[in-house]
Amino acid sequence: MSASQLQRVVTEIADELRTRTDRGTVASYIPELARVDAKSFGLAVIDRDGNAAVAGDADEPFSIQSISKVFTLTLALGKAGDRLWKRVGREPSGTAFNSIVQLEYEKGIPRNPFINAGAIAVTDLILSGHQPKEALGEILRFMRFLADDHSIGIDEAVAASEQRTGYRNFALANYMKSYGVLENPVDFTLGVYFHHCAIAMSCRQLAMAGRFLARSGRNPATGHAVVPPERAKRINAIMLMCGHYDGSGEFAYRVGLPGKSGVGGGILAIAPGTASIAVWSPGLDVTGNSRLGQLALELLSKRMGWSIFG
Amino acid sequence: MSASQLQRVVTEIADELRTRTDRGTVASYIPELARVDAKSFGLAVIDRDGNAAVAGDADEPFSIQSISKVFTLTLALGKAGDRLWKRVGREPSGTAFNSIVQLEYEKGIPRNPFINAGAIAVTDLILSGHQPKEALGEILRFMRFLADDHSIGIDEAVAASEQRTGYRNFALANYMKSYGVLENPVDFTLGVYFHHCAIAMSCRQLAMAGRFLARSGRNPATGHAVVPPERAKRINAIMLMCGHYDGSGEFAYRVGLPGKSGVGGGILAIAPGTASIAVWSPGLDVTGNSRLGQLALELLSKRMGWSIFG
Amino acid sequence: MSASQLQRVVTEIADELRTRTDRGTVASYIPELARVDAKSFGLAVIDRDGNAAVAGDADEPFSIQSISKVFTLTLALGKAGDRLWKRVGREPSGTAFNSIVQLEYEKGIPRNPFINAGAIAVTDLILSGHQPKEALGEILRFMRFLADDHSIGIDEAVAASEQRTGYRNFALANYMKSYGVLENPVDFTLGVYFHHCAIAMSCRQLAMAGRFLARSGRNPATGHAVVPPERAKRINAIMLMCGHYDGSGEFAYRVGLPGKSGVGGGILAIAPGTASIAVWSPGLDVTGNSRLGQLALELLSKRMGWSIFG
Amino acid sequence: MSASQLQRVVTEIADELRTRTDRGTVASYIPELARVDAKSFGLAVIDRDGNAAVAGDADEPFSIQSISKVFTLTLALGKAGDRLWKRVGREPSGTAFNSIVQLEYEKGIPRNPFINAGAIAVTDLILSGHQPKEALGEILRFMRFLADDHSIGIDEAVAASEQRTGYRNFALANYMKSYGVLENPVDFTLGVYFHHCAIAMSCRQLAMAGRFLARSGRNPATGHAVVPPERAKRINAIMLMCGHYDGSGEFAYRVGLPGKSGVGGGILAIAPGTASIAVWSPGLDVTGNSRLGQLALELLSKRMGWSIFG
Repeated sequence: MSASQLQRVVTEIADELRTRTDRGTVASYIPELARVDAKSFGLAVIDRDGNAAVAGDADEPFSIQSISKVFTLTLALGKAGDRLWKRVGREPSGTAFNSIVQLEYEKGIPRNPFINAGAIAVTDLILSGHQPKEALGEILRFMRFLADDHSIGIDEAVAASEQRTGYRNFALANYMKSYGVLENPVDFTLGVYFHHCAIAMSCRQLAMAGRFLARSGRNPATGHAVVPPERAKRINAIMLMCGHYDGSGEFAYRVGLPGKSGVGGGILAIAPGTASIAVWSPGLDVTGNSRLGQLALELLSKRMGWSIFG
Repeated sequence: MSASQLQRVVTEIADELRTRTDRGTVASYIPELARVDAKSFGLAVIDRDGNAAVAGDADEPFSIQSISKVFTLTLALGKAGDRLWKRVGREPSGTAFNSIVQLEYEKGIPRNPFINAGAIAVTDLILSGHQPKEALGEILRFMRFLADDHSIGIDEAVAASEQRTGYRNFALANYMKSYGVLENPVDFTLGVYFHHCAIAMSCRQLAMAGRFLARSGRNPATGHAVVPPERAKRINAIMLMCGHYDGSGEFAYRVGLPGKSGVGGGILAIAPGTASIAVWSPGLDVTGNSRLGQLALELLSKRMGWSIFG
Repeated sequence: MSASQLQRVVTEIADELRTRTDRGTVASYIPELARVDAKSFGLAVIDRDGNAAVAGDADEPFSIQSISKVFTLTLALGKAGDRLWKRVGREPSGTAFNSIVQLEYEKGIPRNPFINAGAIAVTDLILSGHQPKEALGEILRFMRFLADDHSIGIDEAVAASEQRTGYRNFALANYMKSYGVLENPVDFTLGVYFHHCAIAMSCRQLAMAGRFLARSGRNPATGHAVVPPERAKRINAIMLMCGHYDGSGEFAYRVGLPGKSGVGGGILAIAPGTASIAVWSPGLDVTGNSRLGQLALELLSKRMGWSIFG
Repeated sequence: MSASQLQRVVTEIADELRTRTDRGTVASYIPELARVDAKSFGLAVIDRDGNAAVAGDADEPFSIQSISKVFTLTLALGKAGDRLWKRVGREPSGTAFNSIVQLEYEKGIPRNPFINAGAIAVTDLILSGHQPKEALGEILRFMRFLADDHSIGIDEAVAASEQRTGYRNFALANYMKSYGVLENPVDFTLGVYFHHCAIAMSCRQLAMAGRFLARSGRNPATGHAVVPPERAKRINAIMLMCGHYDGSGEFAYRVGLPGKSGVGGGILAIAPGTASIAVWSPGLDVTGNSRLGQLALELLSKRMGWSIFG
């Protein structure tokens, strides 16, 4: 399919969704996030040849929140390799993103790197032996490199808001710490965690950053491997299995693409070998995933024939 | 890749695995299953052109057990359509195949059609308004039609063994019945369930039966649709998310194909658009999935480049 | 306090409660139980000298349901002694009377003899090696002997009603059977269980039957020991800790007496060394315990100074 | 029974237990506690006339840990009355002292005031509107007043040890904070909590402090009410139901007295109307309760006929 055809489909979808009123609820548990305009909608697709098709607010930055976990997982695998899997599992949890029950039944080892507990454990691994500022710098440099955009930064107000009110994450981190799953001081690890979740990016920037997962681990700009092809596949697999918390089955069923959502309303999705996609609509469904974002991806996957399931 | 190349890869894998001693443990909770030869190994692949590549005991029948759930789900969706999702969810459970905990927390609605409780609810839907014998006949005719092989039958000794000792399934069924999730008498529903799990098939027959899932829902022999293309994708999605119980994440990570395992040691896997695959090795790992079966599929997926993740 | 003073207090309480409208909800999950008159109220106290003080419908028989578990526990301890504690624990469960979750986490061993699962395991122990009819005869003879009343019988309509609709109990029993906690066929054990729960007794009969627990194990009529003094104390302890399911803490806090409730609306309570008490009011609170029954006992315990806590 | 007879029984029990080698395991999760001499044993009983019978190391101070929760509950009820029960339940939990699972299923409301989460919520109520130092001073003054001994103090090394390593308690507190169950900053509440758990008292001092619970709420020294009689009973009831975590049923069954244990190896037990008892032996059983302490109380209760169950 040509780049112009892709752009036409993207525009169509944005147009169709513009008038939808069933947009779900904007996340309010992080007070700063609640201020966003509920009607925002952006969609950006980068195809395998590097062509971008965008629509709506595709260049407006939003809080990527848990989408950052795809990139911290990638970084941590680069540092620790398979050692990482001693501290975090890779199975769907069957529970909400912030559940602590599973930790008690499984000795402090989080089920996967995309539930909050797992992502905190991954951040702890990146931090290992460094100052929070250094670790955060490394994460930010990685994001800028992947997106090929040095303007990407952190929304300090969002980070501070989480730091003040993120009691549930403090509970998860202290719980893991009691089992020795975290190595660094809880405040250090959570400091980095809250900040990388507060990275602000546009759909276009996110789709750019996800290209290596659609291209067997290679950064198409440079042609160099960001990760080996095997690892790119595996990250895609974890995204499909665990990327939408307790709505992962639903996303696989309807969209059929590896994806990772954030409570800021963004979703990064990958059509392996074909395209990197980012969508943003702040209203969430009961499982904490962007309602229109999922719908947009369902339409896109269908119309482009991109489902990995046939 | 040519049919002869595929045959070579299949033969290689069977050869490599022949000498492995870490074969896991043959299921003993169904006494009849414990009698099987632990060293059995079969592998069969049917490609999109209908060519078969087989190795080892690919023509020896074994108890397909939970693999039958792919086909009862297909039948039930044909009868009930989306009504089915009122009685069963489609999310990974995060628990063992025979867990009852989730049912208590979610009012008797099983998480997905592939854990035991969910498959029992699906069987109840097929049974609806019929005698057990009729429902079972329908399931068996469907299997024979899909595999294009009228010799497929039920191992009555295995069915009787389960009927006598399947207390855990009686617990699950009665529990759902107490919530009104089952419509038929528990004994009727479980009778059909135990019997369809006791269907005996060879790897070749299973791979034949799975072809429609690799071909957008079409039976390649007749060219007619078994299910609409959309439904084939969705069944593949559920297989990937939930097909290996609490080892589904591991299977997606290592193999990267939709698949469904049975405690008889079989696995049916689908390379969408490309191939239908069945493997059999009776030894299971701790999550109840065939150990060598998973390994064979991992090697096959890698060497053929069939992973859906890139 | 004299017998006439006790009678005055009992009459007062019955009078005070007569006009209460907040009577809770009559159990409907056993259809036969739902037919009872919601306004029924009975109270009977037998003091240490054998004097009876009664009020209201104290001579009208009702379905004792779970109160029977006190007597089956007594019988089973007589048969099996401390062996019984290998099959059942003696800790509060922290969950509802019919929960199955705890069984999964603790390998089929019920938390205590008064939750449904535990009482079924106790019944299985009594049944051991006998026909259901014999075991049931033994239980009934024991009740008649304790109450000194040979007219006590079983309400067959209630037993049949449970047998037809008691799916949750079938689930619990089959679940335990899968762990080998039950020795007898599930249908046999549940047959006896449903029937002993369907014993019909009046408050006066129940209070008579409970006398041995108020008199250090002795049957005051004959002076002979029903159980050793140590065992009587221990049964009282279990009643206090576990007798009202997930409302046991509330009952201890408000009433301060060992007690056992049934979903028929009855409660047997013991003032150790002082009195055996039975109350009946069919309306239940959310934890499944008689609402007015608990209130009557709270008033009685307070006015008579019978709390075991000071 | 005369004071000299009581002293003889107390001496006998101490003598009998001196040679026991099955003393359980000294708590090691608070590093400072692990340093105590595992062979320590003290027993002190104050009868209703104020006579003290003591044996062994009855005058050696130890870390009272969770026994302090009886006194903080008493203080908090004095301040908040029944409002307290909006933040804490009063049912046995059926889980370990430091479990967080129940909090997730019940929206951050701890099951009872004696599990860690519940005691933290109670401390938060005492703290309300004050500085940590003031709240701690109030608790300490209350303990000194009850024990009539102004030498009672806090072991700062133990408090500091907990503060450094009490990650599980930080998890519990932050979890409750996320549900709004705690009003004060987590660090403030836990600061007070860790310090009141680190109060060091001897058996004699503890038995003195518990007298009001054995005397209907009255301080026998002054004759004045510490709490109304009704409240004393209720605190005793909660001690019986919840005082030994997941071993509360066992304690009621074997000892038959309201009691509260601490991981320092102490237990405070009350014979209502009769005596206040403290015992200390640092070795714990699997439920976290002093092994010899429970045994000593079982022997004492039996020989003195003090069980509340008959």
